[in-house]
Amino acid sequence: MAPPKSWLAIPKDSEFSLSNIPFGIINSKGSPLEKRPAIAISDHVLDLKAFSKGDGFAGLASLSKEHLEVFSQSTLNAFAALGQPVHNSVREYIQDVFSETTSRPEILKDNDALRKEALLPKHETKTHLPMEIGDYTDFFAGKNHAFNTGALFREPKNALQPNYTHLPVGYHGRASSVVVSGTPITRPSGQILLDPTADPKVPAFSASRLLDIELELGCFICKGNDMGSPISINKQAEESIFGFVLMNDWSARDIQAWEYVPLGPFNGKNFGTTISPWVVLPSALDSFRAEKIPNEAKILPYLQESRQDTVYNISLSVDLTTSEGDTTTISRVSASNLLWSFPQMIAHHSAGGCPMRTGDLLGSGTISGTGENDLGSLLEMSLGGKKDIMLTGMHVRRFLADGDTVTIRGVCGEEGSYVGFGQCSGTVASAVPF
Amino acid sequence: MAPPKSWLAIPKDSEFSLSNIPFGIINSKGSPLEKRPAIAISDHVLDLKAFSKGDGFAGLASLSKEHLEVFSQSTLNAFAALGQPVHNSVREYIQDVFSETTSRPEILKDNDALRKEALLPKHETKTHLPMEIGDYTDFFAGKNHAFNTGALFREPKNALQPNYTHLPVGYHGRASSVVVSGTPITRPSGQILLDPTADPKVPAFSASRLLDIELELGCFICKGNDMGSPISINKQAEESIFGFVLMNDWSARDIQAWEYVPLGPFNGKNFGTTISPWVVLPSALDSFRAEKIPNEAKILPYLQESRQDTVYNISLSVDLTTSEGDTTTISRVSASNLLWSFPQMIAHHSAGGCPMRTGDLLGSGTISGTGENDLGSLLEMSLGGKKDIMLTGMHVRRFLADGDTVTIRGVCGEEGSYVGFGQCSGTVASAVPF
Ligand SMILES: [Ca+2]
Ligand SMILES: [Ca+2]
Ligand SMILES: [Mg+2]
Ligand SMILES: [Mg+2]
Ligand code: NI
Repeated sequence: MAPPKSWLAIPKDSEFSLSNIPFGIINSKGSPLEKRPAIAISDHVLDLKAFSKGDGFAGLASLSKEHLEVFSQSTLNAFAALGQPVHNSVREYIQDVFSETTSRPEILKDNDALRKEALLPKHETKTHLPMEIGDYTDFFAGKNHAFNTGALFREPKNALQPNYTHLPVGYHGRASSVVVSGTPITRPSGQILLDPTADPKVPAFSASRLLDIELELGCFICKGNDMGSPISINKQAEESIFGFVLMNDWSARDIQAWEYVPLGPFNGKNFGTTISPWVVLPSALDSFRAEKIPNEAKILPYLQESRQDTVYNISLSVDLTTSEGDTTTISRVSASNLLWSFPQMIAHHSAGGCPMRTGDLLGSGTISGTGENDLGSLLEMSLGGKKDIMLTGMHVRRFLADGDTVTIRGVCGEEGSYVGFGQCSGTVASAVPF
Repeated sequence: MAPPKSWLAIPKDSEFSLSNIPFGIINSKGSPLEKRPAIAISDHVLDLKAFSKGDGFAGLASLSKEHLEVFSQSTLNAFAALGQPVHNSVREYIQDVFSETTSRPEILKDNDALRKEALLPKHETKTHLPMEIGDYTDFFAGKNHAFNTGALFREPKNALQPNYTHLPVGYHGRASSVVVSGTPITRPSGQILLDPTADPKVPAFSASRLLDIELELGCFICKGNDMGSPISINKQAEESIFGFVLMNDWSARDIQAWEYVPLGPFNGKNFGTTISPWVVLPSALDSFRAEKIPNEAKILPYLQESRQDTVYNISLSVDLTTSEGDTTTISRVSASNLLWSFPQMIAHHSAGGCPMRTGDLLGSGTISGTGENDLGSLLEMSLGGKKDIMLTGMHVRRFLADGDTVTIRGVCGEEGSYVGFGQCSGTVASAVPF
């Protein structure tokens, strides 16, 4: 099938093709104080507030005047709360509006005034956190990562904990520390055991020496549940998904190692988690469904899915750019490397009655493959900090250096109809002096 | 010193004496749709929206018109964000307004119309969650509890983990599951190892059989920090505290036991956490400062306090009421049984740069004493589920039964000038069928 064409110039390699139409929050040079919803297309964004005020949605009868209010908000929460049928009809309508053979040329194609008002060059805009995040939960569904890291600390036979194949292991994260791509990440200081073998164990307070990344996929919730009323697997769980973002769950391995017994990661994680700015809808990814990693355990009914292709074949990559400007792609891996799907994570998270809310964010857990060039963390690439990772320009790393920039990308599909996420990028700033 | 007297009848045993003046959110029979700020005094509440609109704050020049807007909000966040000097001047002003010898009798004492409008009998009002909670973190600072539970699973010598005396151990909780006193708590279902000794370990999906309580003190943040800028111990950390509430961190021990390795408690905790409705300001508790449990470890400078009396001698009690209506006080303990103070928890939480925000909630961790009748969880009272807890009316428990109501109370001071929190209460509802 030839990719759909637009009257707008869309480079063949654009990850924001007509097949994508992801949602985000922008401001612009022209209206710097006004954060508002937009979609990304080619090297432009369509300002949905201006589009809506300029009667751009006149051809979408199902969107009431009240609905249009969601495009005047500074986050996507109100839009997300309208539910998948509305998200999909808005996306399809915008696809039609931009199509070469649009049924409504008067809306935008032939409407110079509205194009000028609402269709902005991306470089004149800035993206912001797309949602107000109520709660953020980070799962651990990347089985290869769980195995690789478990094997670093235990024998391979016991690399996975006994619960791992029975439930999507996860922990509550820190919503306040989620930031949008481009936000600098300050190297955290904290308690660290400089000599983990010493007895007694006496921590020092120091800047983290083992600053790491975690390559993850994030998932935003559009429809939640009342406390005490679990979300069921399959249809209900799938309908509670708004869309997906790329995520870098920056991790301070030395802080984490000392603090995490017995209640889990805390300051080793809560100093910053970066997400990409554009929320890609499930409907945009539907052609890229893939099967999860097979689970040999007999899973309980509340986690049983009616289909197995509930993850996505998104080509993820991680670039590390040194402060000198040398860039190395340190990983390429498919986002399908998960033992548990987001619907399973949602069903599990709410199984005891925990309320999910619009804007909640779930992280997949670190996504690694089974090879050497498809790993989602430096901890794995450096074999627990024992091996140099070779970079372009004669640089080596075991963990991140100040000034390093890590950029995650993710894209599906083929030339002319790529569905991508934009960058999830952050630069490490030096620790604050104490 | 004789307790201050009010022109309003305040029973000697009221925990809402003139010395208290805690803040909450109410609605009323008269205005059921309008959630608004109030203070509790005796068996009345002062509706701060009505009081403000009726020029009640005319005598408090430091409160600008803009400031008064905070009393038209449906949460206390905007009021909290104004900072401690404003909280204290509002509290002191209200104390003066209610004083027998008030300097401003025209404001309320002699103002029949405003009294009728703003001073409502408590039984005609309902309390709500006082704050919009951005993030909720639960600490583990109750050293006796940590020791008691550690000793159940390990030998007493190793009851405390090596990090315990060096840092306030904590984990991120689930903000969406925090509810106000009176909200029913549905017994969670989840994955449980019916036979923890079996090999291989195979979980069942079942209603929790080991439903427990955790007696805690909660702390709301009024002033946060930017990401990357830690809050320093002492003055800065103390000034970031808005006030305190009682907390019951309901816990499903069987769900928790199976899920918590290696990332900490999750569904064993996130089905509900109850807080008392009235936020007691630090200034109301200042006379009840007490010393923390001494820490034998040499703690790092970022946690060193300039004074040791940074916890409070609040008399906490826990009542268990069966569905038949029999009530037993199962614990009495002082809230001073903490190894770490809230300022220390705040300094630690933000040490790596994690941003705190207005409305964030911190839990102290379970508060237990060193005896048999001062324990903060049924897990400890029943010695890990091995011993019956004897209740009034020939009932016994090891963990909670459906229909049980748990009520936490906390009070400081003396007859006539008690400073109390109101009830933190919840009733266990049966699990939902799966
Ligand atoms: Ca992670
Ligand atoms: Ca707790
Ligand atoms: Mg993180
Ligand atoms: Mg809880
Ligand atoms: Ni009265």
